[in-house]
Amino acid sequence: MRTHVVIVGAGPAGLMLGRLLELAGVNTVILERRSGQYVLGRIRAGVLEQGSVALMDRAEAGERLHAEGLLHHGVELSFDGDRHRIDFNALIGRHVMVYGQTEVTRDLMAVRQATTIYEAEDVELHDFDGKPWVTYRKDGVTHRIDCDFIAGCDGYHGVSRASVPEAALTTFERIYPFGWLGVLVDKPPVADELIYAHHARGFALCSQRSNTRSRYYVQVPADERVENWSDDRFWDELRARLNPETAAHLQTGPSIEKSIAPLRSFVAEPLRFGRLFLAGDAAHIVPPTGAKGLNLALGDVAALADALIEAVLENSTAGIDAYSTTALKRIWKAERFSWWMTSLLHTFPETGAFGRRIQRAEFDYLTGSLAAQQSLAENYTGLPD
Amino acid sequence: MRTHVVIVGAGPAGLMLGRLLELAGVNTVILERRSGQYVLGRIRAGVLEQGSVALMDRAEAGERLHAEGLLHHGVELSFDGDRHRIDFNALIGRHVMVYGQTEVTRDLMAVRQATTIYEAEDVELHDFDGKPWVTYRKDGVTHRIDCDFIAGCDGYHGVSRASVPEAALTTFERIYPFGWLGVLVDKPPVADELIYAHHARGFALCSQRSNTRSRYYVQVPADERVENWSDDRFWDELRARLNPETAAHLQTGPSIEKSIAPLRSFVAEPLRFGRLFLAGDAAHIVPPTGAKGLNLALGDVAALADALIEAVLENSTAGIDAYSTTALKRIWKAERFSWWMTSLLHTFPETGAFGRRIQRAEFDYLTGSLAAQQSLAENYTGLPD
Repeated sequence: MRTHVVIVGAGPAGLMLGRLLELAGVNTVILERRSGQYVLGRIRAGVLEQGSVALMDRAEAGERLHAEGLLHHGVELSFDGDRHRIDFNALIGRHVMVYGQTEVTRDLMAVRQATTIYEAEDVELHDFDGKPWVTYRKDGVTHRIDCDFIAGCDGYHGVSRASVPEAALTTFERIYPFGWLGVLVDKPPVADELIYAHHARGFALCSQRSNTRSRYYVQVPADERVENWSDDRFWDELRARLNPETAAHLQTGPSIEKSIAPLRSFVAEPLRFGRLFLAGDAAHIVPPTGAKGLNLALGDVAALADALIEAVLENSTAGIDAYSTTALKRIWKAERFSWWMTSLLHTFPETGAFGRRIQRAEFDYLTGSLAAQQSLAENYTGLPD
Repeated sequence: MRTHVVIVGAGPAGLMLGRLLELAGVNTVILERRSGQYVLGRIRAGVLEQGSVALMDRAEAGERLHAEGLLHHGVELSFDGDRHRIDFNALIGRHVMVYGQTEVTRDLMAVRQATTIYEAEDVELHDFDGKPWVTYRKDGVTHRIDCDFIAGCDGYHGVSRASVPEAALTTFERIYPFGWLGVLVDKPPVADELIYAHHARGFALCSQRSNTRSRYYVQVPADERVENWSDDRFWDELRARLNPETAAHLQTGPSIEKSIAPLRSFVAEPLRFGRLFLAGDAAHIVPPTGAKGLNLALGDVAALADALIEAVLENSTAGIDAYSTTALKRIWKAERFSWWMTSLLHTFPETGAFGRRIQRAEFDYLTGSLAAQQSLAENYTGLPD
């Protein structure tokens, strides 16, 4: 088999890239290690920047998003119970859209015309410095696809980045000494908008997937075990970290999902190795504070799609030559914002009493400064490229 | 002897407090451990916020400042040689005034009418929880002053904070793993405005005292010794950290002062202990990045003067009751800004390669965002109370 671009990974990044390419007339095959059902079963974040919504429209996959997504014009910050709303609309005339990552994936799956090969095992990338080809095993048979380019959209643990010689990669990492314990519950959210709460007991987040399904998180130590957390313990801890008035409105119920996710900042540079390109979590991870992960991945593939369309259809390498440098500038700005928002809102035992006072001063400065709020708002809703 | 307020310390904070009080008709005595000549010999920073300039006017001590001070409408940031000007005037319509702290002290000395006792040794504070009195030794004789209030304006190492029972104080501290090696030289400054430079070799600052006297700094390890730095070595190192074009304009000469200052963030809470009040460096230290130290001290004594005038002349405790809480809010915002600017511009071996990329991302974000630049500008020129 031969195609223009082999895309490794059928998460939202791979599917979006495939869709943008097929709409332009570039042939693609997507290889995915898991089944489609498995991919749709993964619970992920769900805050889309305006640029991500526009990209869904460009992919002709935005219809349900516009019908079911919830426009959010602000977020609430809370610090030891003191509340402040960041009004994106009033500050900078922008907003975000709450729409689950799973739904983005589902919608992109639905519009895709070209081949996606699920349960493709033992994917291997070959000769991406010359004439690339990819092998995989399906139902016990090994297959080969020759291609012009390979796009690695297969996440942090995927084969794409792992195929690059170690000496060619520079990695940057920050591991945080805590994780997020998350609970999904079929109850209306405690507030119309998201609440990011700093508390001496730790960070908490009141998020949502829809008007009837809520997602809540509390900061826990990195080595905490989910088995230690009954639903009751979780709700008690969450309430303790919120403003009392907010806590009183919390509608609790049996968790339909409960898990602990570690927090990490990670970037691998560069994003291009000959004819192999990395995009999304394959190249970088942000801590979830600020909801940049999915948006950053979609930003990558939007740029990569344009570059590959130019390369395949116009035989111009300008786009693919610039991809890594340009994308990394955007990525590092989002890494910075995610790190900053994480630093502001979590408790860090190692920074001590001075660090906590600095966090409080940051909150007080932020709530009193239009410029600081505009800065937060423009980062949260998505910086221009 | 009896007076309304004994002020400990005849630096700019103590002198300003004394002047504001005497103009309102409140009696003061200032006790200073050193001689007037010694006080004027100390080399300190020299960037005044607009509020500090207004305070000098209120003290009727602003005449020379307006004649000789240099209005600065912006600063230059440099990151690995990439330059960006922060235009205070265009961003927020504000400016700062370059005028040496020594000159501020000299001008405040000149206008003072009431008694300043220099070379007052062994100052001791007594009964500040009840009816306060202060003793000191001068020319071998011990003297006593009874008073209504004591103002501790005697700096980080002074007797005032040291007189407070340890259990009554909460302190917050961050020690930075480096200091500033500073050189004073009688040459025109390399640029009209200040240049704050981040470089892989470390931070550098091009500052100035006047159009013919410049002050330059380079970041050095905390345990560095000034003896290791010849003038030539200093100029070579400074040039290496600047944009090459800037470096080419540097006018060097024999240093007339050369010293290393450690960098520290420090706050002691509260600022009031009965009838004793702390102000300025006696209560808090900022790293010099951003030039907040003197301005913060003047902000303290402006608030303290109003509170003491109320207490002495109107017999109202509202001002002195609010002083500590109100001042600490302002102080912590300046601590945050000084910490942030220090964090952005210096090299921190312990944050590693990730930390350096975050600094670069912060610089890139800053230079591309109006909101972020406005935030820097409003902090640098002085936040409203």
